[in-house]
Amino acid sequence: MSRLNEKEIIKAFQAKFGNSDHRPEDVENFTLGKTKVIFNIDTLVESTDVPPGLGAYRAARKSVVASASDFAAKGIRPRFGFVSVVVPESYSKEDVMLLASGLSDAAGEMGFKILGGDTNKGVELALSVCLVGEAESIVGRGGAKVGDIVFVTGPFGYPAAGLEIVKRGINAGRAFACKARDAVFSPLCRMDFGVAAREVMTSSMDSSDGLSSTLNEMARQSGLKFVIDSIPAEKEIFDFAEANKIEASRLIFDGGEEFELVFTARPVSSERILGIGKKTRVPVMPIGRVMAGSGVTLNDGNGLCKIKDAGWDHFRT
Amino acid sequence: MSRLNEKEIIKAFQAKFGNSDHRPEDVENFTLGKTKVIFNIDTLVESTDVPPGLGAYRAARKSVVASASDFAAKGIRPRFGFVSVVVPESYSKEDVMLLASGLSDAAGEMGFKILGGDTNKGVELALSVCLVGEAESIVGRGGAKVGDIVFVTGPFGYPAAGLEIVKRGINAGRAFACKARDAVFSPLCRMDFGVAAREVMTSSMDSSDGLSSTLNEMARQSGLKFVIDSIPAEKEIFDFAEANKIEASRLIFDGGEEFELVFTARPVSSERILGIGKKTRVPVMPIGRVMAGSGVTLNDGNGLCKIKDAGWDHFRT
Repeated sequence: MSRLNEKEIIKAFQAKFGNSDHRPEDVENFTLGKTKVIFNIDTLVESTDVPPGLGAYRAARKSVVASASDFAAKGIRPRFGFVSVVVPESYSKEDVMLLASGLSDAAGEMGFKILGGDTNKGVELALSVCLVGEAESIVGRGGAKVGDIVFVTGPFGYPAAGLEIVKRGINAGRAFACKARDAVFSPLCRMDFGVAAREVMTSSMDSSDGLSSTLNEMARQSGLKFVIDSIPAEKEIFDFAEANKIEASRLIFDGGEEFELVFTARPVSSERILGIGKKTRVPVMPIGRVMAGSGVTLNDGNGLCKIKDAGWDHFRT
Repeated sequence: MSRLNEKEIIKAFQAKFGNSDHRPEDVENFTLGKTKVIFNIDTLVESTDVPPGLGAYRAARKSVVASASDFAAKGIRPRFGFVSVVVPESYSKEDVMLLASGLSDAAGEMGFKILGGDTNKGVELALSVCLVGEAESIVGRGGAKVGDIVFVTGPFGYPAAGLEIVKRGINAGRAFACKARDAVFSPLCRMDFGVAAREVMTSSMDSSDGLSSTLNEMARQSGLKFVIDSIPAEKEIFDFAEANKIEASRLIFDGGEEFELVFTARPVSSERILGIGKKTRVPVMPIGRVMAGSGVTLNDGNGLCKIKDAGWDHFRT
């Protein structure tokens, strides 16, 4: 019996649907009447996406962050949300109310309204969050130009470190453990930043499949090479990795479930971007540049090495 | 620990979302730009909605029928579909291809295109089908008028009988068993009929929550009484019920997962409705009338009895 990985499954589905020329994007966009509709659906599944200790409220909030982050990367605030909930039979009234609060609080935080959805019973919790918005155009994954600067909206590695702590019980200093757990349990969505920076982004993608996958996908769709000059991670990530004999690069580049924006912009926009970061309290930082060529390369001071596409695949064994 | 039933869960969610005045409808509708958008999400969950023997292909097809039937009841053909798939880890490449074929064939059958979606790994199969369309207005659940005739698009009871056969191994004659199993495995969607009959329907609802629930909901939202003069079921359903000591009324009125349309229309539209039925090969039939009052009453020749709202609730124990 041959298994497919996530990209192969998506490709197989798209071929059957007659969308063989489909270019993967963070959101779907199509025209209805005279309106350009932006749409996204993202499902959080208990056995795959819910680490121990997350709880119903934060699981519900996280499901909305995951879906909204795709809109944020395109510079668009959703207008309406719809949620299909699969509730485990064991859930009490209180659990159900926590789900409802988590969804509703998250929508409020990100500035849209949930209009309705669907409820079902099942073996495990599953939350399918659909978001709908409207925009003349989106910032695509493939619009980077030679000479652009590559930016990210924050340091990487905390969610992957947090998962090691939460799932495997790995030890860490209290302050670090708290920060890393928070990144897993209560991730932020860069909505305000994405909407404000939309005009100056030449390409953009949400990093939830992992930083290495994201950079590679953007370089591929842009038909250019991304050179990374500065690894977007704090010293404490390297310390945690070393103390626990984990490769730091795995935590930083291949983690996933990290809802930062990775985007490119003309050098002339740098000041404006840093200003938007300040205003929206997002630690945006330049990490590299776009050149002719292909692939993603890390310039670590001693020379160049390739950053392979090794991010998150739901079906990886 | 107190449990909520499905209606209570929906009510709790809607209250949290700030939609306390929400009137349940088959589809959501909202305005985006200048376009009136019609939207629906419906999730098929393996442990709840997939009887033994259904298989990946028919499960996928059924998930589309369930969602599309809500559009059919509103007289609207969807334009686009999006599907979030939770694939069990045990699924082979062939299983995944069967899911894709089932989705794609169903969309073709009902006349719309699937544009994309989301893939995930999980413990059980779950298919969330989102449909999007456009329409100036929908045929609501609450538009029935005094003097209207109540119609249904087919005889009832086959899916409930089929589930008894498939799940409990109850015996039945070969021809009947085949027909009943087919109603469970390969349900039809009344899309062409609904779209064609749209102009003459004064109210309409999909019967997937069960005929009794559907009639009661329509009577409630219309603020009127529905009197049923003729039970929409074939003799073989009564025979099957009697032979197996099952209440026939339970099979006919309280089954659910039956994707017929229940609708009302002015008496003057009757001929046109029967003509549309002939043209679209749908066995549409009048079953009652709308009067002042409230509730749903069965006039069985010996007098009147109340038809209680006892249809499908995912959370009923």
